[in-house]
Amino acid sequence: MSEKNSVGLVKAKLVKITKPLKLTSGKKLPNYELAYETYGKLNAKKNNAVLVCHALSGNHHVAGRYKKDDKYPGWWDNLIGPGRPLDTDRFFVIGVNNLGGCHGTSGSMSINPKTKKRWGSDFPIVTVEDWVNTQAALIDQLGIESLAAVIGGSIGGMQAMQWALSYPKRVRHAIVIAAAPNLTAQNVAFNEVARQAIITDPDFYNGDYYRFKKKPKRGLRVARMLGHITYLSDDAMDLKFGRKLKNKNIEYSFDVNFEMESYLHHQGDKFAEEFDANTYLRMTRALDYFDPAKDYQGNLSKAFKKVEADFLVVSFTSDWRFSPQRSKEIVKALLDNELTVSYAEVTAQHGHDAFLMSDPHYHGILTTYFKKIANQL
Amino acid sequence: MSEKNSVGLVKAKLVKITKPLKLTSGKKLPNYELAYETYGKLNAKKNNAVLVCHALSGNHHVAGRYKKDDKYPGWWDNLIGPGRPLDTDRFFVIGVNNLGGCHGTSGSMSINPKTKKRWGSDFPIVTVEDWVNTQAALIDQLGIESLAAVIGGSIGGMQAMQWALSYPKRVRHAIVIAAAPNLTAQNVAFNEVARQAIITDPDFYNGDYYRFKKKPKRGLRVARMLGHITYLSDDAMDLKFGRKLKNKNIEYSFDVNFEMESYLHHQGDKFAEEFDANTYLRMTRALDYFDPAKDYQGNLSKAFKKVEADFLVVSFTSDWRFSPQRSKEIVKALLDNELTVSYAEVTAQHGHDAFLMSDPHYHGILTTYFKKIANQL
Repeated sequence: MSEKNSVGLVKAKLVKITKPLKLTSGKKLPNYELAYETYGKLNAKKNNAVLVCHALSGNHHVAGRYKKDDKYPGWWDNLIGPGRPLDTDRFFVIGVNNLGGCHGTSGSMSINPKTKKRWGSDFPIVTVEDWVNTQAALIDQLGIESLAAVIGGSIGGMQAMQWALSYPKRVRHAIVIAAAPNLTAQNVAFNEVARQAIITDPDFYNGDYYRFKKKPKRGLRVARMLGHITYLSDDAMDLKFGRKLKNKNIEYSFDVNFEMESYLHHQGDKFAEEFDANTYLRMTRALDYFDPAKDYQGNLSKAFKKVEADFLVVSFTSDWRFSPQRSKEIVKALLDNELTVSYAEVTAQHGHDAFLMSDPHYHGILTTYFKKIANQL
Repeated sequence: MSEKNSVGLVKAKLVKITKPLKLTSGKKLPNYELAYETYGKLNAKKNNAVLVCHALSGNHHVAGRYKKDDKYPGWWDNLIGPGRPLDTDRFFVIGVNNLGGCHGTSGSMSINPKTKKRWGSDFPIVTVEDWVNTQAALIDQLGIESLAAVIGGSIGGMQAMQWALSYPKRVRHAIVIAAAPNLTAQNVAFNEVARQAIITDPDFYNGDYYRFKKKPKRGLRVARMLGHITYLSDDAMDLKFGRKLKNKNIEYSFDVNFEMESYLHHQGDKFAEEFDANTYLRMTRALDYFDPAKDYQGNLSKAFKKVEADFLVVSFTSDWRFSPQRSKEIVKALLDNELTVSYAEVTAQHGHDAFLMSDPHYHGILTTYFKKIANQL
């Protein structure tokens, strides 16, 4: 990917939303802050905005770099820029850190205005519906009535779906990638093991570890290592690591013997340093709870009755976390409502993580779809 | 399963092996004890012995009950008894707790004769090869030259395979169920996450927790919860738990909301009370290291050159831990050596755990196979 197609240097912004937020849980936030970034320009008609929703460990830094020498650009940089699939010459792109996050948006790490102390365990449990409501408040502030598209992968795709449900008049296209209409029992189980690793870490202090100047790093590390297994396909792991040893011989120890272990340790260590455990708990709970069909006796087609947006649904053959089968459930429910939906099952080896890669077939589909949207502006 | 076909009340036995054991790691054990049980009678020719090898959390208590009111019989009771597939009217059945175990056989919890203290972290890391060597020492003590069969599921199946490799003249049939010729990178990864949960538990004390009258229960609990996800199929979990809530409504908390979570907690809690963390570490490492093809440039067919035993290989369609594909690798390597092998891929919903169930098709196959063996006695 050439640097010349990059959005270049970017700055994060912060907005305070003073309209109180009623959460799905019944709790209320009188106000909150959202960290966000934008790329490209809002056109005169204000109809070219595309919202990018992030997944579990993502944030509002979707594209570009803060400083020239940043080691990595934003997490979906390969998608966004002038001439890239989500073309910033045509679109005004918005990235936002979700409520409960740990990168600037109000969350457990933030100061609770009432107590002047960090929220910690008191920060409420949030849902995909709540996130979409805060994102709608953000675009209100930006003077945007209707989004050209909402796009996201994994739990980001669930947010795109929820947008079409919560604000049918305010989103024209929903792009749902590597997602599912809800979690399977196995998905919930993986989330719960990760949460239990965190919650039972003695440094968790029931979510109020900031007060003790501690972090439940051990638990967060195990949670992340486990997550990584589910992001990659079995085949991709075998190709990348197989049974390769770190050193020449088996060491008959519980230290790192296999390269696979070395990779997991590295990912776990890095994440435990950078991420906040309370955010991890809330993101996984939001995943567990997402289930638009639940108020319709499990009938997704009925849940989608109010949808008006056109959909693009993309799945990856080797994604065993949210398999193509789950995407097809979404497609079926949309078709049952005579909605316009394009579906692509991309042959990919990387498992769930494929949604972050720049596979030509996958990016070709997105390029075409965004061109179609651009032509309607 | 009717009680009348049970082996009835049984007693565990303990044998001290005084022949020094050279371990794969290069370390030596001057002597060790093995806990074992036997069912049925050794015939005059001493050619009707069947060794049952246990999997990760199993032990030598394979069938029957210690007391009439024991809540559960041995872990493979449905297989073994007069008139059951492994018929104790025909066979002399031996169950043994593996070296490094925590149910009577020498392991980290045992007293190191040198120091008069518990072995703890000093107990060596053992391999499948080591286990087979100790099992051979046990049958020496029992006056058995050659086993009619060795049978096992999962890592028990690997032991059956290893018997045919280490002692080609001493085993006539190897029954390898729900196993694999080695672990995939994903398998190793799951093991490593489980081990890291244990090792980073502050109550682990580098494996010497006994001294501090502690147990790394938090880590062992997380390890077991994770294990359970891999023992069950996605479909079985969806059928059994789906998205069922424990109470009527979502509770917006990190407590148990879903029945799936309740199940995992129950399994984790029970295991953390009963099992020893050092044994868990050693069992998973033995799994990681098992790889008969490793000295043959990964060529399993070459590794099997010395095998003489007939094989029965059984896999289960929904087993994603050791998929049918892995069993077929074993079958192919046996056929390449013109060995006699029967293979059955059983349609089963329960995933890896299916090897413990009494599915009629599965048990029918074992019944037939053991009848054939019995007719050769």
